[in-house]
Amino acid sequence: MTVLSQPSREQLDLSRVLEALSNPIRQRVVATLAANPDHAYNCGELLADLPKSTATHHWRILREGGVIGVRLDGRNRRPCLRRDDLDARFPGLLDAILGAVATSAPSHAGVIA
Amino acid sequence: MTVLSQPSREQLDLSRVLEALSNPIRQRVVATLAANPDHAYNCGELLADLPKSTATHHWRILREGGVIGVRLDGRNRRPCLRRDDLDARFPGLLDAILGAVATSAPSHAGVIA
Repeated sequence: MTVLSQPSREQLDLSRVLEALSNPIRQRVVATLAANPDHAYNCGELLADLPKSTATHHWRILREGGVIGVRLDGRNRRPCLRRDDLDARFPGLLDAILGAVATSAPSHAGVIA
Repeated sequence: MTVLSQPSREQLDLSRVLEALSNPIRQRVVATLAANPDHAYNCGELLADLPKSTATHHWRILREGGVIGVRLDGRNRRPCLRRDDLDARFPGLLDAILGAVATSAPSHAGVIA
């Protein structure tokens, strides 16, 4: 199983993590992955309403920031939230952000199919 | 006492708060203010090592993002961390970020006088 390149746990950088999470579309992706940890999402399935180049940009920021991992599964790209790594490096951060996303106006909920 | 324009507590936007906090220099400012809540800092005193235009940029992102307030005190600009507002809107977020800043390598500590 191939995993696309990503920073290791030790390489996680707070600024890049916060930058990755500072966008409503990316917040919704992360909230969706967090809420459904056992669902095998496909990157093409999430953000299906966005132009492909825009969706690819968001996935790259999330992956290179260390917030998600992406593995290749045949023709699918499977994203997963790196909760264990984030919780280990930045305790409480992910849950605080997910809590804030949940209470924010769901003005961007529609971008996720 | 004049206070520079800032978003109200209700106007605080998670994405803008995270963007404001996604920079190591701004993280250090916030950590310094959080660690010394009773000290009357001057904006010119903090970030004294940076070009003035750069420092002004960082102060504006922090203020417009709702992370700090700035009041005019004679010829001084006094920054204060909006902890109560941030804690009310995004419980646990500020403390999680401050905790992460504290454990990160202090590679940017030198920018604060």
